[in-house]
Amino acid sequence: MSAKLKTAVLGATGYAGFELACLLARHPHLSSPLLLSRDNGNSSPSNLAEIFPAIAGNGGYPLEAFSWNRLRDAGVDLLFLSTPHEVSRELAPEAIARGLRVIDLSGAWRLKQEEHRAVYAPLNAHAGLADQAVYGLPELNRDQIRKAALVANPGCYPTSIILALAPLMRAEILDRSRGIICDSKSGVSGAGKEPSSRTHFVSVANNLSAYSVFGHRHTGEMLEQLELTADELIFTPHLLPIPRGILSTIYVHLSRPMLPTDVESVFRDFYSSARWVRIFATPQLPQIQFSLNTNYCDIGFCLAHDGRRLVLISCIDNLRKGAAGQAVQNMNVMYDWREEAGLN
Amino acid sequence: MSAKLKTAVLGATGYAGFELACLLARHPHLSSPLLLSRDNGNSSPSNLAEIFPAIAGNGGYPLEAFSWNRLRDAGVDLLFLSTPHEVSRELAPEAIARGLRVIDLSGAWRLKQEEHRAVYAPLNAHAGLADQAVYGLPELNRDQIRKAALVANPGCYPTSIILALAPLMRAEILDRSRGIICDSKSGVSGAGKEPSSRTHFVSVANNLSAYSVFGHRHTGEMLEQLELTADELIFTPHLLPIPRGILSTIYVHLSRPMLPTDVESVFRDFYSSARWVRIFATPQLPQIQFSLNTNYCDIGFCLAHDGRRLVLISCIDNLRKGAAGQAVQNMNVMYDWREEAGLN
Amino acid sequence: MSAKLKTAVLGATGYAGFELACLLARHPHLSSPLLLSRDNGNSSPSNLAEIFPAIAGNGGYPLEAFSWNRLRDAGVDLLFLSTPHEVSRELAPEAIARGLRVIDLSGAWRLKQEEHRAVYAPLNAHAGLADQAVYGLPELNRDQIRKAALVANPGCYPTSIILALAPLMRAEILDRSRGIICDSKSGVSGAGKEPSSRTHFVSVANNLSAYSVFGHRHTGEMLEQLELTADELIFTPHLLPIPRGILSTIYVHLSRPMLPTDVESVFRDFYSSARWVRIFATPQLPQIQFSLNTNYCDIGFCLAHDGRRLVLISCIDNLRKGAAGQAVQNMNVMYDWREEAGLN
Amino acid sequence: MSAKLKTAVLGATGYAGFELACLLARHPHLSSPLLLSRDNGNSSPSNLAEIFPAIAGNGGYPLEAFSWNRLRDAGVDLLFLSTPHEVSRELAPEAIARGLRVIDLSGAWRLKQEEHRAVYAPLNAHAGLADQAVYGLPELNRDQIRKAALVANPGCYPTSIILALAPLMRAEILDRSRGIICDSKSGVSGAGKEPSSRTHFVSVANNLSAYSVFGHRHTGEMLEQLELTADELIFTPHLLPIPRGILSTIYVHLSRPMLPTDVESVFRDFYSSARWVRIFATPQLPQIQFSLNTNYCDIGFCLAHDGRRLVLISCIDNLRKGAAGQAVQNMNVMYDWREEAGLN
Repeated sequence: MSAKLKTAVLGATGYAGFELACLLARHPHLSSPLLLSRDNGNSSPSNLAEIFPAIAGNGGYPLEAFSWNRLRDAGVDLLFLSTPHEVSRELAPEAIARGLRVIDLSGAWRLKQEEHRAVYAPLNAHAGLADQAVYGLPELNRDQIRKAALVANPGCYPTSIILALAPLMRAEILDRSRGIICDSKSGVSGAGKEPSSRTHFVSVANNLSAYSVFGHRHTGEMLEQLELTADELIFTPHLLPIPRGILSTIYVHLSRPMLPTDVESVFRDFYSSARWVRIFATPQLPQIQFSLNTNYCDIGFCLAHDGRRLVLISCIDNLRKGAAGQAVQNMNVMYDWREEAGLN
Repeated sequence: MSAKLKTAVLGATGYAGFELACLLARHPHLSSPLLLSRDNGNSSPSNLAEIFPAIAGNGGYPLEAFSWNRLRDAGVDLLFLSTPHEVSRELAPEAIARGLRVIDLSGAWRLKQEEHRAVYAPLNAHAGLADQAVYGLPELNRDQIRKAALVANPGCYPTSIILALAPLMRAEILDRSRGIICDSKSGVSGAGKEPSSRTHFVSVANNLSAYSVFGHRHTGEMLEQLELTADELIFTPHLLPIPRGILSTIYVHLSRPMLPTDVESVFRDFYSSARWVRIFATPQLPQIQFSLNTNYCDIGFCLAHDGRRLVLISCIDNLRKGAAGQAVQNMNVMYDWREEAGLN
Repeated sequence: MSAKLKTAVLGATGYAGFELACLLARHPHLSSPLLLSRDNGNSSPSNLAEIFPAIAGNGGYPLEAFSWNRLRDAGVDLLFLSTPHEVSRELAPEAIARGLRVIDLSGAWRLKQEEHRAVYAPLNAHAGLADQAVYGLPELNRDQIRKAALVANPGCYPTSIILALAPLMRAEILDRSRGIICDSKSGVSGAGKEPSSRTHFVSVANNLSAYSVFGHRHTGEMLEQLELTADELIFTPHLLPIPRGILSTIYVHLSRPMLPTDVESVFRDFYSSARWVRIFATPQLPQIQFSLNTNYCDIGFCLAHDGRRLVLISCIDNLRKGAAGQAVQNMNVMYDWREEAGLN
Repeated sequence: MSAKLKTAVLGATGYAGFELACLLARHPHLSSPLLLSRDNGNSSPSNLAEIFPAIAGNGGYPLEAFSWNRLRDAGVDLLFLSTPHEVSRELAPEAIARGLRVIDLSGAWRLKQEEHRAVYAPLNAHAGLADQAVYGLPELNRDQIRKAALVANPGCYPTSIILALAPLMRAEILDRSRGIICDSKSGVSGAGKEPSSRTHFVSVANNLSAYSVFGHRHTGEMLEQLELTADELIFTPHLLPIPRGILSTIYVHLSRPMLPTDVESVFRDFYSSARWVRIFATPQLPQIQFSLNTNYCDIGFCLAHDGRRLVLISCIDNLRKGAAGQAVQNMNVMYDWREEAGLN
């Protein structure tokens, strides 16, 4: 642990990339991360503090133009891509070829099945790399992540939903024939930093709206990781009038009647060694505020009197456990550090 | 229509009662409503503008102490009770006995089945009146409302959910064995004006929380009006960081595959004469903002490719169509006025 | 009052224009307003409800392409311009030449002095028309508005500030040498509907920011209407995390010590016949919520123990009294209708 | 630095006390802080996570009943009082007598002049201790804080205002005869955790209100620390619809014309060794978001063309630099640690 790892972030000017830059900058096992931008021309900012004045003071974080030479000269070991999926698809293969390890925060490499990949356009030449990419949910795929060259950091919605459902799926106590309904609500930072009429303050304030019903591109991740078919899961995202945070309300049927304490045990057993999942005991339920600015996924539940109808509540901070925090957690796993390093 | 009706409101100092007082004050078929308070002692406000300065100017609205004599002397025909259900249960029988018609905004008289009524404590002596009370959802019960002595104004959540489901239930196209899931999100005014740690700004802002899962007292209304059993419907309310408005996301299965246009027709046919329901054509969906400060219930839907899994979105303003606006609409029906009178 | 006036609105797709269209549509002395858009090509919306679904139901409001012929054929008497000032400067002269009366909601015609006009670019050929334009603050300029061909509807900030200061200026009780400080806070709709990083929800929520200090283009209106020099008034606008509403906190010195009741009398006397100004008696102060969705300007004050240092609080809804509501009020004055017509 | 300091917090269940507990728990030079409550009876929470579930996981923070014996047995060196001023006045003298050092977050010990103290009721027997108490603004009083037995942690508003004005006062470049106007806007956590109609979500959302004009009890701190008379400063607080953060807009006159660069130099020189003050270069201005969740006081300014009228913008997080963060900074000074210890 004496020598510090050298990391780089491409795309630190977005919400998730900025969150990541801040986490990396204070991570105990890293030297200062190299922050890179592809459009870093003459008029581009040379310091991230110009875009996010909150980090001014003590020099802020220098922002440099991206080039492979710059990565090489800086001795970068691990590259974070916080870029649109098109850019990630272009750059990840070359990064891997140059011997870097990569954690990609886009949807470019998350999906194994071509029918799901289609939402991000076909992969063509790089299907082989896609097959080797590891879905970066440490609670499920810790061992593969440890050895991965390319980690596909999960989407924010899938993180909240897969972590709530995986223990029940693995315990084979779900009646899948009854269907699984995931009603998710997210803060606006999930929609990205690009201004649009949809993210205008006046459109969002005092409002709630559903969108992409039966058609959100995060759906494939849930199906693949939970090994479900498309007709077994409904996912409905909503846009909340808050900057960050996700709450997913998930409706399932158990295949046999259970007691609340039994359900709780399923979760506690499954996550007994998970540093970043908190299980709430009935009747306590997670709220979005509880996990804000943390890397926790908070999971709680209510079981009907029949012992079969189960409502799960799962909360995360979409920019932490749903993006940048999870990327750091993945790095910790890749380098055999404690999973909370840099995340407290 | 020459002579104007005399109305009174008891409980105009709460959110719904205030909204009601404002609507009645500008209703074309009414003389000035009598606004009454039970605790109108020496230190009590004598004008509603002292509590809600927004209505100051032009004299505001005088607030008087409640007494049966005052009602009689003022020649009141119709009494609105915007009071806790305990108070409504105490006062409605006497009001009816004195020849008044009553629209009660509490949960006191909404439920017919004793098992559902239990959430509001037993009715004892007044079960007979409860049987005569009419559930005041004009789109379903217009004829009974017209003749009713006592109208039980529906709860806000049930209004948004029953109106979305009733056309499908009546058309008998729902596969009830698959269950009905109602995931509702409400603004804070639905929790009432009494300060509590739960309604403190810091608790609500930047947050979302589920509550009363499997146990909200509005559930009985949905079951009775839709003729469902308790195991056929799950209702999960959430508290939104907005002052007013409800969005309900409702998940059902159709008993046979349908086309979106067919589903739309079911709704349009059912509500062909409904002044205060708007049906949204796919792919448009209602949002909370669209119905704020209106008496509309907005209903939209998305149908899965299988033609069977159906997601409904239903929005209302909880203080208008969910409370005071619906009370006015009920009055309009009771007195054979146009249903939009005083609601535009 | 038998024949109804025909009005048209150009620019109903912006926040103020939409608010205006809604007010005009229910104004008792008007036939349906003609709503016009300059970019109403093939792909443009043909109904305002496509942009603002809140007004769907009952047919919404048709939106047509602007042309002078269309105005003539429809028999339009009065044209509202809710357009950028460049467009208003182009169209108002021709409208006047064609015999229309015009109420312009932009800054194009508000300023008399060339040094102030400069912020909107020079007027060149139309300086004559600018001289004839009447500043449309009915509480100050009622008589000129009544006869005006072109009314320049005031800016939102100046409305809140001029109405608070005018009574003190006219009573000549201000010590102008001590300076006048106007610290204003506005909701986001004041920044317009165009998406930008500044109006992105994440930028505004949980925030407050000052902008255009010593340089906001509304300053000239205040100086001209109050007959002040630039060094006598400081105006600092701030962006609030709310959709609409303005609160201005104004600091002045009285030239001689007064009692609170005397100050209150100055305001009450000045506004004795003003329908849309409410004076708050000490210690009550206006809040933004009180005037939301109304045409009121609410004014309150606190006087220091020395009887000279005076803090004024002035609140308006920036889209009503600060824009569309005031435009309707101006129309009411121009056509000798009651000033509250269409505004309750 | 080998042995860790033992601290205790009384009042960790309030907003500031909780923030403080979290900061202390991860401070590098401290062992786990003892968290104490005075009403910790049988039904009281035994862990702070019961009140603030955000800190659940890893055991949360135990909460114990307050007693002097418990403090002694735990070997507490430094006691933080995050209690109402009445409690602070009762307990601080005994704590000092028992050899503890004390940082008090209430207003109990901040004021030296009896006329200012009066707002917190008279001190009677403990006036001597009040004279020894040091006003805990490290940027001004670092040397006295280092040796103090009792540090009076400043109020949130005064922190934002005094830090903006002190450099100008010390440089003697203010024309005090023109008056100083402080227009401050604060988030709701500043009003405390106790529910009230004033802090109800519906009262605060979509609103802004001024309060305690000419009468806020923080005024005395500003006057004493800046050595001003009551007629030289006006302070107007406003309640913002956000959970936390303060922005103060401050209006002053310089006694002679200056250039912006000169003004900037005054600030930079004054704060050259200040770790927690950031000076913004014109035309950049601080916003509330920039200092949220940090211990920074951000200061920016605009100078009029006359070089004399100066508008200052000062932002802090009221729970960090305005309360708990400043308390930690004071502790760091008292024990000769780096001022950023535990605050990054």
